[in-house]
Amino acid sequence: MGVSGEFVFLNGAVLPADEAAISPFDAGLLRGYAVFDLLQTLRGEPFMLEEHLARFRGSAAMLGLRVPLDDEGITAVIHELLERNAHAEATVRMVLTGGVSPDGMHFDPTTPTFLIITHELFEIPASAYDDGARLLLVEHRRELPEAKTTGYLTWLKNHGRIEAEGAMDLLYHSDGLVSEAATASFYVVSGGRVLAPREGVLWGTVGSKVLEIAEAEYEVVRCDISVEQALAADEAFITSSVRGVVPVVRLDDHVIGDGRPGPVTRRLSGLFRAETGL
Amino acid sequence: MGVSGEFVFLNGAVLPADEAAISPFDAGLLRGYAVFDLLQTLRGEPFMLEEHLARFRGSAAMLGLRVPLDDEGITAVIHELLERNAHAEATVRMVLTGGVSPDGMHFDPTTPTFLIITHELFEIPASAYDDGARLLLVEHRRELPEAKTTGYLTWLKNHGRIEAEGAMDLLYHSDGLVSEAATASFYVVSGGRVLAPREGVLWGTVGSKVLEIAEAEYEVVRCDISVEQALAADEAFITSSVRGVVPVVRLDDHVIGDGRPGPVTRRLSGLFRAETGL
Repeated sequence: MGVSGEFVFLNGAVLPADEAAISPFDAGLLRGYAVFDLLQTLRGEPFMLEEHLARFRGSAAMLGLRVPLDDEGITAVIHELLERNAHAEATVRMVLTGGVSPDGMHFDPTTPTFLIITHELFEIPASAYDDGARLLLVEHRRELPEAKTTGYLTWLKNHGRIEAEGAMDLLYHSDGLVSEAATASFYVVSGGRVLAPREGVLWGTVGSKVLEIAEAEYEVVRCDISVEQALAADEAFITSSVRGVVPVVRLDDHVIGDGRPGPVTRRLSGLFRAETGL
Repeated sequence: MGVSGEFVFLNGAVLPADEAAISPFDAGLLRGYAVFDLLQTLRGEPFMLEEHLARFRGSAAMLGLRVPLDDEGITAVIHELLERNAHAEATVRMVLTGGVSPDGMHFDPTTPTFLIITHELFEIPASAYDDGARLLLVEHRRELPEAKTTGYLTWLKNHGRIEAEGAMDLLYHSDGLVSEAATASFYVVSGGRVLAPREGVLWGTVGSKVLEIAEAEYEVVRCDISVEQALAADEAFITSSVRGVVPVVRLDDHVIGDGRPGPVTRRLSGLFRAETGL
């Protein structure tokens, strides 16, 4: 298990984690009414912080919630936590819930619960980048896919199976179309074009950067991607804030392309690393 | 807002609510990995407790979690809470989460978070029983419909609209079929038969009792119910643990039957009240 930070930020104060008390009447706990965002540090500094803050505020707005601190305030808190928790490299998780709901039905959107916690950055095996990863197909569509909500039931329920089968993540599909991995964005390469799901997915911080890079050299198309198209693709890859670009070479037991990370994926991954240093 | 109980039960102890600290690393908070059950008291005593305990254990099992107390132990805790919190009548909410997850990915299913809280019982207007209620149609299917999970994002997001439009609840539909209200079971009466959605719904405690009563006098059919069938029904009603049987006379702006609670609904409601005293 990853090591969690000794200090956390909760509703205005940085305090020891074991003194940070979430109310048993919190709407995030009782009703899943909560959004979050997750970023990693790179050489100790928050990576793509601006993009994560923008996405976090967007998720909050979709739930009618307002983040109680401005960007400068949040940045200061994150730096304080990183200094106090002294991880080698960290993931930083910002969580915003509807706040305390005495009856489990109503809450005051002006008094949300705002939590920032850190974990030691987990590393995926280098072989995933070199040899590619496997995803397991699961039929599911997130409840409000454009918002990064805390609803990860299907993923966690399948987490044991993911690890037992040596997979990296789930690939969600619904109505015959693939959307996203449970914890990453998903893209395919087909006939030299990079295809990105058109809708019903979370905006990816790393994914958007990779697509921007791709547009200089490849045709990038936002379109519906059927399960069949994904299985028949030349290449596939996922992107995530805490893993960068990871080639995908298997969906369930189906081999993508020749079963090795493809040239477009390798090219985009290299350009992304060169540009961002990740 | 409803009044919440002064005392709560958390992981083995009854303690003042403001001393009950949920960890900021709880998987129920960070990942929505949690189930619950909700019951009401009738003249101070838990109503249909046995059925709620069975459903709660079933929900927990679907998430690979085990309720840490036996029925006798939970019953004793509920009685202690009801005595200490001294509501006129109460709702009792049992919540079970995956427990503390230091990395937000892994948790130990043998150390869940087990919480029991109470609220003052809310009353719906008597006019809802006499004149019938309105539901708002929303396209949605719950993530794991057979389990009573804490995933109520779509409901809470629409809660303001429900109240503003004088509706009682949402009616979920997906792929052209109606399933259940956000916080209640949904049934229709058509050609003298009582129709219940065949699958993809939570087992209802009151609903099952009402169907059992109905079977003595009517043909009860478990089948797919399309949105069109629901709109064209002679009667419709919802059932819930905390509201009993409530006639439904409008779906969005569409009037069901003649717009008044129908004879079958009134008959079933009367028989249910006579049998249970609710």
